Amino acid sequence: MSLDKFFEPRSVAVVGASRSPGKPGHVIFRNFFEGNFKGKVYPVNPKARELFGQKCYRSVEDIPGKVDLAIIVVPASLVPAALGQCGRKGIRHAVVISAGFKEIGNAELEEKVKAVARKHRMRLIGTNCIGIYDPYSGVDTIFNPRYKLERPDKGNIAYISQSGAIGTVMLDWMAMKGYKISRFVSYGNETDIGADELIGYLSRDRDTKVICAYFEGIKDGRKLFDVARKLSHRKPIMVQKGGITKEGSAAVQSHTGSLAGSEEVFSAAFRQSGIIQADDMEEMFDFARLLSTQPLPKGKRVQVITDGGGFGVMAVDSIIRNGLELAGMKKKTLRELKKALPPYFIIKNPIDLTGNAESWHYEKAINAAMEDPNVDMIMAIVLFQVPALTPEVTSVIAEASKNSRKPIVVVASGGRYTEVLKKCLESSGVPCFSYPARAANAMGVMYNYAEYRKRRG
Amino acid sequence: MSLDKFFEPRSVAVVGASRSPGKPGHVIFRNFFEGNFKGKVYPVNPKARELFGQKCYRSVEDIPGKVDLAIIVVPASLVPAALGQCGRKGIRHAVVISAGFKEIGNAELEEKVKAVARKHRMRLIGTNCIGIYDPYSGVDTIFNPRYKLERPDKGNIAYISQSGAIGTVMLDWMAMKGYKISRFVSYGNETDIGADELIGYLSRDRDTKVICAYFEGIKDGRKLFDVARKLSHRKPIMVQKGGITKEGSAAVQSHTGSLAGSEEVFSAAFRQSGIIQADDMEEMFDFARLLSTQPLPKGKRVQVITDGGGFGVMAVDSIIRNGLELAGMKKKTLRELKKALPPYFIIKNPIDLTGNAESWHYEKAINAAMEDPNVDMIMAIVLFQVPALTPEVTSVIAEASKNSRKPIVVVASGGRYTEVLKKCLESSGVPCFSYPARAANAMGVMYNYAEYRKRRG
Repeated sequence: MSLDKFFEPRSVAVVGASRSPGKPGHVIFRNFFEGNFKGKVYPVNPKARELFGQKCYRSVEDIPGKVDLAIIVVPASLVPAALGQCGRKGIRHAVVISAGFKEIGNAELEEKVKAVARKHRMRLIGTNCIGIYDPYSGVDTIFNPRYKLERPDKGNIAYISQSGAIGTVMLDWMAMKGYKISRFVSYGNETDIGADELIGYLSRDRDTKVICAYFEGIKDGRKLFDVARKLSHRKPIMVQKGGITKEGSAAVQSHTGSLAGSEEVFSAAFRQSGIIQADDMEEMFDFARLLSTQPLPKGKRVQVITDGGGFGVMAVDSIIRNGLELAGMKKKTLRELKKALPPYFIIKNPIDLTGNAESWHYEKAINAAMEDPNVDMIMAIVLFQVPALTPEVTSVIAEASKNSRKPIVVVASGGRYTEVLKKCLESSGVPCFSYPARAANAMGVMYNYAEYRKRRG
Repeated sequence: MSLDKFFEPRSVAVVGASRSPGKPGHVIFRNFFEGNFKGKVYPVNPKARELFGQKCYRSVEDIPGKVDLAIIVVPASLVPAALGQCGRKGIRHAVVISAGFKEIGNAELEEKVKAVARKHRMRLIGTNCIGIYDPYSGVDTIFNPRYKLERPDKGNIAYISQSGAIGTVMLDWMAMKGYKISRFVSYGNETDIGADELIGYLSRDRDTKVICAYFEGIKDGRKLFDVARKLSHRKPIMVQKGGITKEGSAAVQSHTGSLAGSEEVFSAAFRQSGIIQADDMEEMFDFARLLSTQPLPKGKRVQVITDGGGFGVMAVDSIIRNGLELAGMKKKTLRELKKALPPYFIIKNPIDLTGNAESWHYEKAINAAMEDPNVDMIMAIVLFQVPALTPEVTSVIAEASKNSRKPIVVVASGGRYTEVLKKCLESSGVPCFSYPARAANAMGVMYNYAEYRKRRG
C-alpha cells in the first residue's frame, strides 16, 4: 500500500483535538485549520461541541464523509480504542503522536497498537513521534506553535528523524536560514513504518532530490541497508547516527526504546551501502544543500575567489585537508583577468580581489573560472562588509550559478547584514557556508559521491 | 613604552580623513566623531577645509593641541612622510591602516616606515591592518561602516588577528550573537608591534579575562612562545593558526608576507607553551566564552538536563568522545528529584524533562545538580520550542549560574525565537551552544585547562 495518503490526504481527522491552546491536539488542529492544507479537517473530541466554529465529533465513526488520514493525539492508554474506531471507519493511514509505549517500558501496550493496526490493515507512523510536515500539501502534525518553531519553505530536501525534538528543532533552524524542504517525517518508535520504508518511498518522490536521516536505533538493519544499496547512487542519502558511544547507546534505550549498536559496525554498513555519514546536523545539511542544488563536479580542482586574504588562506588549508586540489587556471585566462581587473589584485589561486572588491570584479572572476577547463568547482568567498561591495553581488552570483555545469558555493560570515544577503543567495539555490572549512568538507563529500556514482554506472 | 595610548588616547589625528563616504579615511573619522570616543579627534587632509564642520589640518604639525595617537590612512608611498610629520609633532603611537608593503613584495618601503618610526621612537600597529576596536574607550579604526559590520559590546574577551578580514568579520558575527569583547587588534604586517607584545600587554589588562588570536605567520616564534609559557596559566590563550598545509602556507606569503611554517612544529610549540589551539573561529570563541564566564571545574563529571531525548543522546555521545564522564548523582538527590517532578520524567543522566518541560522543572533539576557533590559541570539542553516552556526559563538559568562554583552551559538550537532567548542568556554570562558536540568539546578543553593550571600551581 502506498504511503501517499500520509502526505497528500484529502481529508484528515484530528483525534484528540483540544480547546486549550497549550495542548498538542489544539496546535495540530490549528495547523490544518489555519494553514495551507486544502482538504477537509475534522476535530474529534467527545468532550467538546465545537472547535473554531467547526462541529466536533465524538468519534471518527460519526464523521459523515470519507477520511484519508487520522492524527491520534490521545493518552497512550486510549490509543488502541481510537485506532479501532479508525479501522471501522475505513481509515487506512494514521499518525500516532501519543507517547508512553516501549520507550518507557510499556511494550505490551505497543503490541496492542500493532495488533489493532494489523487487524484493520492500517499503516501507522509513530508511536511517540511528531509526525509529518509537508510544505506542498500543508500537512503539519507538529505540535509546537509556529511563533516558537518556524516551518521551512517548499524545497527538495527530504528529512526523516527518529527523534521528534531533533527533527523539529532542525526545521526551525532551516526556516531561519532559508533552507527548504520537500517532506519531513519524525517516525519515533517505528511501531509499523520504519526508516527503510520511508527512504524507499522518498527515493521515488519527485519533489525530493536528496534524503537526510537522523537515526538512533535501527529496527531492521538488513532491510535498511538493502534499500540504501539499491538507491544511493540515484539519490544521495545522508545520515547522522545518534548513540554511537556505549553510553550514548544506553541513553537511546530510554529514549526510543531501540538498540543502538556499535559505531564501527554502523560506519562500515553505511559506507558499503553508499550512505553518506555526517558527524552532526549542520554537516548533514551542508552536504544536502550542496548536493540538492549543484551539478556534480567532473573532478576535484577548486578555484577560490576571495575579498579577504585570511579567508583565502583558510580556504586553501581546508581544500587540501579534504582531499581536493587547487585549480591552476590556463595562462590565457590569467592574462585576461589581469588585464580586466585592477593591477593590485592577486590573480592566482586564490584570486584575491582585496577589500576593494566590487560586484563586477566577482562577475569577471567567476565567469573566467566557469569557462576555464582546468577548474572543476568554485568557492567564492564574499565578505559583504567591505566598503565598495554592494548587495547586487548576490544577483551576479545567482546568475552565474543558474545554468552552470560546475558547482559553485559561497562562503560568507558576519552579522545580520550578511545573514540577510546569505538568505537571498540560498533562495536562489546557491549554497552558503559560514567558513571555508565547512564548504570544503561538503565539496569533498560531493566529489566522492560523484566518483561513487561513476563506479556504480 | 606602554601600549596604553593605543587603547586610551585622549586625542587622535586621522591622517587621510576623507569627505567621500566610501573611503576608509571617511569611515574611520566618523567612527571617532560620531561614536563613543570621549577625547578629541582631528581630521588631517591637505585638500579639504573642513569635515563635518570640523576644521581640517594640512598636516598633523598644524594641530594646535597635543596628539596621543595618529591613524594613518594615506596611500602607501606617502606613509613615511606622514609618519615623519607625526614624529616631529611628538606623536609616539600610530596605527598604519595603509596597505602596499611587503605583502605585495614592497619590502623596501616597509623598511623605510620602520626606520622613520625608529628615528622618532614611535610605536606602530600595522602596516596593512584594520587596527583597533576598543568598546570601553571608543577607539574604532575599522573602515567598514557600522550598517554592514556591527560592533560587539563591552566584555572581557580580547581578540587579536593578523588578518583584518577575519578579525572584522568575526566582530560582526560576535555582535549578532551577543558575544562581548574587551579589546580587538588587527595587526597586519607586524612592522613594529607583533603578536607577542600584544599578548603580553593583554595579559596585564584588567578588562581582559581570556585572549584569542588568529595567526598566519609568526614574526618571532621564540618570543611569542616565551611570553605564552609565562602567562598561559594565569589567563587562557587561544589560537587559531592559518596556513597549516603546504599550500595554505604559500597563500600566507602573498597575504601578510610572512612565513607560515609546518603544522606539526606549531602544534607542538602551542602545546608546550600552554596555548589552546582551535581548529576554527567558532571553536575558538566557544572556548573563550566558556572560559571567560564560568568557574573552572573541579573534575570531569557532567550532568545533562534535557527536554529532548535525542539531544540527550547526542550529549552523552559527545561527552564521552571528549574524554569527560557522565556524573552519577547521589541516590538521595535522585530520590528527591523523583518526588518533586512528574512521574514520567526520566531521572538519571541525562535527566529527561521531555517535551512537557516547564521553567520550574529546570529550576529543580539544575539546583539539585548544583548541590550534588558528584557533579562537576552541568549541560542544560533547553529546546525553547516545547509547548509549555516559557521564556522565564532564561532567568531561572541565569540566576542559578550567577553565584555558582560549577560551570554551566546551555545547548539550544532553532530559529529566531530561540536565537533571541540565547542572546538574553549570553548577556547574562551563560554561554550557549547550538549543539551538544560543540558544548562538550569546549567543556573538555576547559577541564584540560583546569588540570594544566593545577600542574603549574
